[in-house]
Amino acid sequence: MSNQRYGAGIWHFATYVDRYATDGYGEPRTILDAIDLAGQVRDLSVVDLNYPFFGGDFSNEQVGAALAKAELDVIGITPEIYTRAFAKGSFTNPDPGVRRLTHELVTAAAGVVRHFGADYVKLWPGQDGWDYPFQVDHGTLWKASLDGVGALASENPDLKFVIEYKPREPRVHMSFDSVSRTLLGIERIGLPNVGILLDFGHALFGGESPADSAQLAIDYGRLFGMDVNDNLRGWDDDMIAGTVHPIELFEFFYTLRRNNWEGVWQLDQFPFREDSVAAADLAIDFLKATERALDKLDVAGVVEAQSRHDSVTALRLVQQALFTSY
Amino acid sequence: MSNQRYGAGIWHFATYVDRYATDGYGEPRTILDAIDLAGQVRDLSVVDLNYPFFGGDFSNEQVGAALAKAELDVIGITPEIYTRAFAKGSFTNPDPGVRRLTHELVTAAAGVVRHFGADYVKLWPGQDGWDYPFQVDHGTLWKASLDGVGALASENPDLKFVIEYKPREPRVHMSFDSVSRTLLGIERIGLPNVGILLDFGHALFGGESPADSAQLAIDYGRLFGMDVNDNLRGWDDDMIAGTVHPIELFEFFYTLRRNNWEGVWQLDQFPFREDSVAAADLAIDFLKATERALDKLDVAGVVEAQSRHDSVTALRLVQQALFTSY
Amino acid sequence: MSNQRYGAGIWHFATYVDRYATDGYGEPRTILDAIDLAGQVRDLSVVDLNYPFFGGDFSNEQVGAALAKAELDVIGITPEIYTRAFAKGSFTNPDPGVRRLTHELVTAAAGVVRHFGADYVKLWPGQDGWDYPFQVDHGTLWKASLDGVGALASENPDLKFVIEYKPREPRVHMSFDSVSRTLLGIERIGLPNVGILLDFGHALFGGESPADSAQLAIDYGRLFGMDVNDNLRGWDDDMIAGTVHPIELFEFFYTLRRNNWEGVWQLDQFPFREDSVAAADLAIDFLKATERALDKLDVAGVVEAQSRHDSVTALRLVQQALFTSY
Amino acid sequence: MSNQRYGAGIWHFATYVDRYATDGYGEPRTILDAIDLAGQVRDLSVVDLNYPFFGGDFSNEQVGAALAKAELDVIGITPEIYTRAFAKGSFTNPDPGVRRLTHELVTAAAGVVRHFGADYVKLWPGQDGWDYPFQVDHGTLWKASLDGVGALASENPDLKFVIEYKPREPRVHMSFDSVSRTLLGIERIGLPNVGILLDFGHALFGGESPADSAQLAIDYGRLFGMDVNDNLRGWDDDMIAGTVHPIELFEFFYTLRRNNWEGVWQLDQFPFREDSVAAADLAIDFLKATERALDKLDVAGVVEAQSRHDSVTALRLVQQALFTSY
Repeated sequence: MSNQRYGAGIWHFATYVDRYATDGYGEPRTILDAIDLAGQVRDLSVVDLNYPFFGGDFSNEQVGAALAKAELDVIGITPEIYTRAFAKGSFTNPDPGVRRLTHELVTAAAGVVRHFGADYVKLWPGQDGWDYPFQVDHGTLWKASLDGVGALASENPDLKFVIEYKPREPRVHMSFDSVSRTLLGIERIGLPNVGILLDFGHALFGGESPADSAQLAIDYGRLFGMDVNDNLRGWDDDMIAGTVHPIELFEFFYTLRRNNWEGVWQLDQFPFREDSVAAADLAIDFLKATERALDKLDVAGVVEAQSRHDSVTALRLVQQALFTSY
Repeated sequence: MSNQRYGAGIWHFATYVDRYATDGYGEPRTILDAIDLAGQVRDLSVVDLNYPFFGGDFSNEQVGAALAKAELDVIGITPEIYTRAFAKGSFTNPDPGVRRLTHELVTAAAGVVRHFGADYVKLWPGQDGWDYPFQVDHGTLWKASLDGVGALASENPDLKFVIEYKPREPRVHMSFDSVSRTLLGIERIGLPNVGILLDFGHALFGGESPADSAQLAIDYGRLFGMDVNDNLRGWDDDMIAGTVHPIELFEFFYTLRRNNWEGVWQLDQFPFREDSVAAADLAIDFLKATERALDKLDVAGVVEAQSRHDSVTALRLVQQALFTSY
Repeated sequence: MSNQRYGAGIWHFATYVDRYATDGYGEPRTILDAIDLAGQVRDLSVVDLNYPFFGGDFSNEQVGAALAKAELDVIGITPEIYTRAFAKGSFTNPDPGVRRLTHELVTAAAGVVRHFGADYVKLWPGQDGWDYPFQVDHGTLWKASLDGVGALASENPDLKFVIEYKPREPRVHMSFDSVSRTLLGIERIGLPNVGILLDFGHALFGGESPADSAQLAIDYGRLFGMDVNDNLRGWDDDMIAGTVHPIELFEFFYTLRRNNWEGVWQLDQFPFREDSVAAADLAIDFLKATERALDKLDVAGVVEAQSRHDSVTALRLVQQALFTSY
Repeated sequence: MSNQRYGAGIWHFATYVDRYATDGYGEPRTILDAIDLAGQVRDLSVVDLNYPFFGGDFSNEQVGAALAKAELDVIGITPEIYTRAFAKGSFTNPDPGVRRLTHELVTAAAGVVRHFGADYVKLWPGQDGWDYPFQVDHGTLWKASLDGVGALASENPDLKFVIEYKPREPRVHMSFDSVSRTLLGIERIGLPNVGILLDFGHALFGGESPADSAQLAIDYGRLFGMDVNDNLRGWDDDMIAGTVHPIELFEFFYTLRRNNWEGVWQLDQFPFREDSVAAADLAIDFLKATERALDKLDVAGVVEAQSRHDSVTALRLVQQALFTSY
């Protein structure tokens, strides 16, 4: 029997707005509502929480009580450094006051990580970047990104900070845009407690092979976390994992297992129009099928085929395992 | 001196939310605020208004007074058939009650068109489509799109209805996804008062050449309106016109002039982080430069080069005109 | 037991050149060599032949003998209207002499169709289109496309002509770029013997859902043929079918079956670096798995879920069938 | 008067084949023919030569004589490590014999660099990568890339080696896929004589901003060379520079000048269907216009606007300079 733990970003259980449906894709929910829904997913053990807690002025204790009732632990805290105040950037904002605000909000989030005994502060600086040619001085922008993260990691050596890169959105170009750029930055920062949260869909969106991205981050000792979803490679659709790219998802998990990477398998899905519990259950049931397929896979055969770059042989073994394991 | 009239969607002067900055990229504005800002743009003559009017319960008369003060006319009305009630579709919603609601809202918008003496009802059914493989029966969905538009056009023969196609967003795939699909649908509907509102950026995003799309719609007698903006071809970024693709923008206007198409040149921009008046002024100043470049262009030379598919000669003539006209 | 017939373009068994490996990805093969290899694929019944026959000056009889030995029939003939003489277009070439040459070559191909009792002449006018803004007059170009195809279909009413559309390559933009554009053109031509050869990968590459494209072509009575392969949606990679998008491939076949479309399932793969027989066997074995999955699928359940646009329920049924059928 | 030197890859003046026009887009040319054509371009000073010399068995002396006659110097030598022998990779080939062959061919190219007093050996390992999920062991592949380049740089400390990255083509994914990945690799190799040849179009194709890529490479001291062209961001179209993205091209040169980067401005264009001399002249004339625009640009104004991330102000200054300078 599998001991694999599953997790989800708590926003999976929120409702959403976008620039068209400004009244939202459903009634607003508080973080307590969302935790309650998360608790209804069959196999969920941990959640990543936005901070500040959304939907009301809730204390750590109130959130903790909801989590206890839902039998959920906290894996990470995601400070919301991408809301209105940060529209022109968090770490890279041209206004030093906003850069200070970023520092303070992340520092507060670090406190919440300690409170819940979570694994990391998750940094997703989605507003750091640019929209237009000639809008920014690129050297200055990148330096500000590294200075901002570096200061926090340096001040909080007891905690891990994970950077979740993405090619773009909401900015037309995001500073931490790829696994390689993020690793370059992390190496430049030079601290042991900064790593990557690898989002499977962001890697696909960026033209990466998620398995290759995972291997690279592991080889640098920087794969601190991961989450999965799916998309059509042209946008961060945050669709249900396994519904478009099951084979590359399988290769991603294959790579983690080959490297004995043993963290939580998390979901980062945005079920705009779906029942959020059903969407999580569908994803996790598919992840469990991939676990069974990994157990069944002729790994020695795959390794031998890869030694000759023989895709046909490798893929036949993969199909034999994956398409018989649901 | 140019007699070209310029217009803009009134949402150009609103503020926006997205799934991350849920508190918005600025203080909310009412449609009256937006009209006031639109009036500050140097060369704006007409606007396209969302309906219901946003930000308050305003009467046609209140809106009309604001327009008069800003010296703006109305070119079209855009019923908001893409908000929460329509999350799973407007014309194609699986719930017949929502399809009726769509019909009623568009019918009300038709009344507003008559009130303001505008040119058309603009249909942008952005929630009509699908997200996942196997989510919908494709034949049923497309038929519902055509039935819905056809019924409205048939009941309101005194008005024009324009369909604004787009490849995707907010759905992962939108039913009216391209110029050709939309023309196919319009021909099937078979009514004279249904046409296309061609968005330059949507054509680019869809892998079309906007000039070719315009020519095709004109050849079917269906180019009822247009608007411009810019993007990186991978998403509907709604950036300021002329900032990324000035040459294809120039070819688009060249095609309109060659066909003696004489409508309004409109803006459909979303200046999330920019001053909206300055963003409109920058775009219109560039459009005026393209007008001057069109006057200066050696059209006979371009036509001759095109008769041989000689891109080098044609582009040299284009560069000589466009890069000397600001 | 399945009666499904399988086919392949004979170029699947050729070797290839590209702009870098100008000496080719293997020793050149004649069409006779390729037919011999095609005969080694376990479940292949028919092939589509390039014309002129490549690799030598072979007669219909020589080719027929090779086909007989390989136990293969001919489904279609593909005239090579995309080689050097046609670099600036076949039907749309600015030189009327080249347009005549196109007509003559396709007419000759029609004779070969009759000789072999094949189903159709396949038109893939891959050089018809443009590369640069301002290169062509778009109205003239499109008219030439339709005039060229229309003349051939009119002169050969006993034969079917199928157009295989693709967004681009080798031109930066191809005239017959999408299912909708091609249907628009076919309707304008107005002859019963012109239809579509739908390539699954071209639809994916063009941002279409192949299942939706198939439904649309069927609804117009124009789906005359199809072939499959796979890609990463950003280029016509012609990879082995089922290796990237198995779920959308399954939806494509589901749509064909729901419409009682009973043609050949063909492969259009370019195994640049793979053993071509093994690549075909891998694809066909996967197609057979999808056939079994179609037999097993709870179609009534899918239909019911689709009536509510319920992707989660539909996809669970799909996963239960597809991921247990290899 | 400008002292800027211009260059081109000699393949700009060759003819091409692709997988469709296997008979080529024109009569084959030898490298001597190509040098003669290059000499006809108005403002060309240097060329990058493929090695082995194409089209015949030419000696360094024969090539040198042709160069002298055309008044051209050599900037770099590009060993052809992407032809048939290298179809499954050069540095990363699973066959150690092919890896040795790669080493030998690049070593021979290094000799040619010395012979002509050129600046660098250019490495474009276009066949190093993968096509399918599960085809390769990603860690092994990347290590082989770095080992291969590192050995050559170590053995030839008197020469510079430049890596030209590209997202893909001919492989579905290329190992050196981005500026960041390449810098990560170069830092890991740890030798001073390995740098980047930044291709403007490859950066665009990879979703990068070329100006940002240049700044990053400069900040690491690794921008050893560059070339320009244009494309539609979805493929390496190698179109004529300035015909699609003039503003981002201008930002790229602005960034080079701001950093006092003073190398050659090279062309990497593939004029499949164009006159190659005219295509080079059109590009260089546009580059000269951008030089004049750089001289005219209100740099202080741009810098001030960038300090506020004010795209509208910056772009107005840019338009004023660029669209008045042809």
